[in-house]
Amino acid sequence: MKNDKLTKELIGIFKKFGLSHNHALISTNALINAELVGAYGHGLSRLKMYCDRIKKKVINPKPKIKIRNISHSVSHIDANDSIGFVAADIGIKQAIKNAKRTGIGMVAVKNSGHYGLSGYYAEQAVKENLITMIYTNAPPAVAPHGALKSLFGTNPICFGTPTGSKIPFILDTSISMINRGKIRVAARNNQKIPLGVALDKFGKPTTDAKKALQGVQLPIAGFRGSGLAWMVDILSGVLTGGNHAGKVKDPFDDFSGPQNIGHLFITFKTNLFVKDYNKRIKDNINRIKKLPKIKGIKEIMYPGQNKYKRFRVNSNKEIKISDIIKKDLEKLKS
Amino acid sequence: MKNDKLTKELIGIFKKFGLSHNHALISTNALINAELVGAYGHGLSRLKMYCDRIKKKVINPKPKIKIRNISHSVSHIDANDSIGFVAADIGIKQAIKNAKRTGIGMVAVKNSGHYGLSGYYAEQAVKENLITMIYTNAPPAVAPHGALKSLFGTNPICFGTPTGSKIPFILDTSISMINRGKIRVAARNNQKIPLGVALDKFGKPTTDAKKALQGVQLPIAGFRGSGLAWMVDILSGVLTGGNHAGKVKDPFDDFSGPQNIGHLFITFKTNLFVKDYNKRIKDNINRIKKLPKIKGIKEIMYPGQNKYKRFRVNSNKEIKISDIIKKDLEKLKS
Repeated sequence: MKNDKLTKELIGIFKKFGLSHNHALISTNALINAELVGAYGHGLSRLKMYCDRIKKKVINPKPKIKIRNISHSVSHIDANDSIGFVAADIGIKQAIKNAKRTGIGMVAVKNSGHYGLSGYYAEQAVKENLITMIYTNAPPAVAPHGALKSLFGTNPICFGTPTGSKIPFILDTSISMINRGKIRVAARNNQKIPLGVALDKFGKPTTDAKKALQGVQLPIAGFRGSGLAWMVDILSGVLTGGNHAGKVKDPFDDFSGPQNIGHLFITFKTNLFVKDYNKRIKDNINRIKKLPKIKGIKEIMYPGQNKYKRFRVNSNKEIKISDIIKKDLEKLKS
Repeated sequence: MKNDKLTKELIGIFKKFGLSHNHALISTNALINAELVGAYGHGLSRLKMYCDRIKKKVINPKPKIKIRNISHSVSHIDANDSIGFVAADIGIKQAIKNAKRTGIGMVAVKNSGHYGLSGYYAEQAVKENLITMIYTNAPPAVAPHGALKSLFGTNPICFGTPTGSKIPFILDTSISMINRGKIRVAARNNQKIPLGVALDKFGKPTTDAKKALQGVQLPIAGFRGSGLAWMVDILSGVLTGGNHAGKVKDPFDDFSGPQNIGHLFITFKTNLFVKDYNKRIKDNINRIKKLPKIKGIKEIMYPGQNKYKRFRVNSNKEIKISDIIKKDLEKLKS
């Protein structure tokens, strides 16, 4: 493995900050995966933040996570302010277990934190031949339609399904025009962001990533995107017992308490209603890939396909670590 | 009731075309509701189409609808080419029953047809104090990202929840920039459509509704909207045993066979994980409504609120019937 050294280093750091070996491993794997799929806003750029939150006692490194089974299908998890990676890992595993038992699983998690990429957990369910839908909320970043102030998080909608081939279909789309993590990385590296994705704090369009972080991000498709963000806030916050309506704290800026993010994992078997799901989904994808293409497009890609390719290519390389993150690592180790 | 005469007329027409009184009533109520909420593309403008399809034997007026219970939570319905309204009515009622019994319900329907507004069925579940997610596919209208040809339907994403007040939260958003029904109404009335919502058959932007119907509609948010449309096609078509990947026939133009549309209804109790859901959702909505507003915005509305207001206002008026539809009614009655 190309990144064994980095993996060991990260596990060591998380353990130094009080996590068990198992929890350190889960958290490290999630960060490394984010780097390998090219989601740098969810990767090493967040390591210092997680450690800071543990140090300031707003992430609990030794959580007592409670799983309450409401039925054979439905479970509720109180993550006791654990690092989000661990809460989500337990959440998706319980949802997989429930779906295998009854055909359908639903698991709500409360008192969790930022868990990185929804798609990473969706992949776990898809590997077990299940379909999954995952919702989580996030700190205020997007203004509700008609409002002058951010309240919704970038609240991703995630859907995963087996495809009958080795590359899973993983849709993991934030309802903001751009991922907040990407703006954060741009701000750290003094890069510009595209016009039309964010407003500054005065409500004016900006390409300055730092100003965008102080202002509001725009939802996709106006009222429609705003409605989808609201739906995610209800499913992951109101329903689960987590924070909602803008109460999730920004993990980088607000150390006044735990985030209490909620997640919702829905999982179900592919063959509940048809015997030949894998054949059907293969046909579906093939038919769409065979459509006439717009000039310049080589292949019509399904969601998750590009990410998978990036993962395969990057897995054979050493992860590039920027100078800023090198400094983070040195400080955190010492 | 202001529209009793029209209601009787429609029931009479559906019965004349072979529907039972009960199925005629279900179908009539759905059409009248679409008119009252102002969704004219799903209202009387479709009556003639439904009757034509019955006459040409691609809708079965006397369906033998089979419900197969896979578990106490999960059911599969074969609608036997019934009119979509009836299949969806049975589908949502079964999903409500399953959720009341076990906390969560999932009902897939196959061999159905166009059922009008997803939100109409979501309201039924919300009235029973359940949260619901509804997916259905539709004939090709939107080009997958990168493709030059329509394949996805306008594939709505629908989510409904009780709000602790009398006006339900019903998000019912198609993933196209504009509802296909609206383009159809514009085409019938020789009205223009906004720029940027559709391309003509040569791939050029158009404001001509008739040219748009021959061309492709654009998804919201590019790759993201295309991914959401694909998700809906999988959930409502691939999973259920319904048609998918562009095989759903256009109900107005293609009488070569039944549509075999699939629907998926997911329902669950609001209090699975929290005791005070109604209070929590009320707090959520109130907090969002209190945000500072953009100049000119009087109130931040949640999805479904405007529709509910239109319904209340329009229920006290007689439905206006255009000359084209008057002609339809006369012909269908005689």
